[in-house]
Order: sequence, then C-alpha cells, then structure tokens
Amino acid sequence: MSFWKTWFSPPTSTSATKASNGGAIQPIRVTEQGEHIYCTNERDLDLYELEELCDAVGWARRPIHKVKKALAHSFLVVAMWSQRGSYRRLIGFARATSDHTFNATIWDVVIHPDFQNQGLGKALMDRVIRDLRAQDISNVTLFADRGVVEFYRRLGFTPDPEGIKGMFWYPDHFA
Amino acid sequence: MSFWKTWFSPPTSTSATKASNGGAIQPIRVTEQGEHIYCTNERDLDLYELEELCDAVGWARRPIHKVKKALAHSFLVVAMWSQRGSYRRLIGFARATSDHTFNATIWDVVIHPDFQNQGLGKALMDRVIRDLRAQDISNVTLFADRGVVEFYRRLGFTPDPEGIKGMFWYPDHFA
Repeated sequence: MSFWKTWFSPPTSTSATKASNGGAIQPIRVTEQGEHIYCTNERDLDLYELEELCDAVGWARRPIHKVKKALAHSFLVVAMWSQRGSYRRLIGFARATSDHTFNATIWDVVIHPDFQNQGLGKALMDRVIRDLRAQDISNVTLFADRGVVEFYRRLGFTPDPEGIKGMFWYPDHFA
Repeated sequence: MSFWKTWFSPPTSTSATKASNGGAIQPIRVTEQGEHIYCTNERDLDLYELEELCDAVGWARRPIHKVKKALAHSFLVVAMWSQRGSYRRLIGFARATSDHTFNATIWDVVIHPDFQNQGLGKALMDRVIRDLRAQDISNVTLFADRGVVEFYRRLGFTPDPEGIKGMFWYPDHFA
C-alpha cells in the first residue's frame, strides 16, 4: 500500500476517542489494554508533562518559559497521547518551524521509551508530514542525529540530496 | 580581530547613509563610485525587484503571492542595498525561519552577480547571524548547496556536526 493511501486517505475506522480537549479523534491504535493512542495539534500543553517526556529520553533541560515561547512560534505542533478512560498521558511530541509557504523544518521529535519500537514514531512523523503537506508546504526538512538517520530514511527523507549539506553555526569557531 | 569584536560591537564609522526608508544606517561600504552599500530588515520589499534579483542568479521563479506570504512569516529578513543619491537597488537578500527561541534556519541567500566576489555575501551573512544572535537564538542552521559549503564553512558553519544529517522529504519516495 502506498504512503499516500495509508496516511492521506480519510479515516475509515469507526472507533473514535473522545479526547480530553473535546472532539472525537480517530485513534492511531487501540492497545490490548484498552488504551487509545492518538495525536492532536494542541500547543497549549502542560509544559511540565512535556519536560518529563523529554527527560525520559535524556534530553538536556530547557527553561520552561523558552519552551513556551518556542511552541507559540512553531508553525506546527503534534502531540501524541495515550488515553484510558478520562486519563491521558503525553507519550510523543514533534514540532516544526516554517515560513508557512515553502519550507518547514521539523524539531524535537520524541516518543516516550515505554512506547518505542511499536511503530508510533512512524505514526507521529506521518502525522507531521500529512499536516505540513495539507498546508501546501513543499520543502519538508529536518536535522537527524546520526542514530536516527535510518529511521527518517525509511520515512522518505533523503540525506544530503544533490550534495546539499545541513550546517550549524558555532560561535566558538571565532573564539 | 575576533568575529565578535568585528561584528557585535557598536558601529564606529561616522559615515551614515540616509536610507530610503528613513533613519541613518551605517553603510557596510562606500564604493569608489560613491555607492553606499548597506543592509536593512525591511520585509515590505518590492517583490518584483526581489524576483529580478533571484532571476539574476538563475533561481526558479516562485509565485509572487507565495513569496509575500513567506516573507511575512519569516522570522528575519535582511535586504542588502546599493544606494547612490536617492536611487537604491536591491543587491542582496536572505531570510530565516525560527521558533523565536532556540532554532533558526536561513533560506534564500543571494547576492546579485554584479556584486559578487567583493565580500558582500560574507557581510550579508554576518548581518543575518548578528541579528539572530541579538534575538538570543542559540541554534543557527542552514542547508547549503554543494557549491557554497566552503563559503559557509569559512563563516563558521560546520557541516554534519557530530554526524547530524540534513534531510529532505520527497513524496516521490512513496510513488
């Protein structure tokens, strides 16, 4: 089945989750334990819950007020949730900056270790790409750590296409 | 002299250009022909003049309404001008997307061929970096075409630091 058919077609499942923020949302998956896994575009997240998620994968802590500002100025935020009954837990996250037109760059992609190796990273990224494409963004980019280059390659990302190099500026260069 | 001392200290030149948009602006250079070269952060540019500039370096044309939207949603726009008397000409351009906090990505860096190989690309990029650093952006990134990787390296950009790869998503991958 092609990517487009899998992810870009309307949902066909009849099982819907009543998300904490209202609206019926199609779950990505319903686990054997009855947990509904789904994504939303909420950006008014509990930032301490987001910090916990980032802690869980060992990321360096960032000041909460800066994270809040960065979320407010991200073009896209995708949050992945696991919900059972009325309790939901943030289990994944990604965001993108963009000029709203041509280019987007995806940052801070994370899945909680308890939920890794179950295809949820792919589901999260497919949601991000679908959302960006729905906004007619033509150039979807990211900077991948060495260990996840293969993961992104399997999702359709190409490293260094036509010799284009991702580059980072370091002030130390001038010390 | 260190980068910081060169570019981050207050202007010391006493020669100032009265830019078309008002305000006295320190020129980067005054040519032998009396042209003042300077940068501004105007984003309300004449988009046809910008298109001419991009045409001059052979870039593919983009719909004007999209360019307008992209400029409006760029975090930073830097325009470089050559001015003689009251006539000014757009000779360089760059912009950046950002989350206003952690990350910025620089796009569409261009210097008109008539003004290349005079150090103005460096001056334009130094202005971009200075503006981003003044906003406390810590992670300044870009995607460099093969032919300009060396140019950016000399400005302090590192390709693939710690194995991080710039990656682009291509829908064709799934065709």
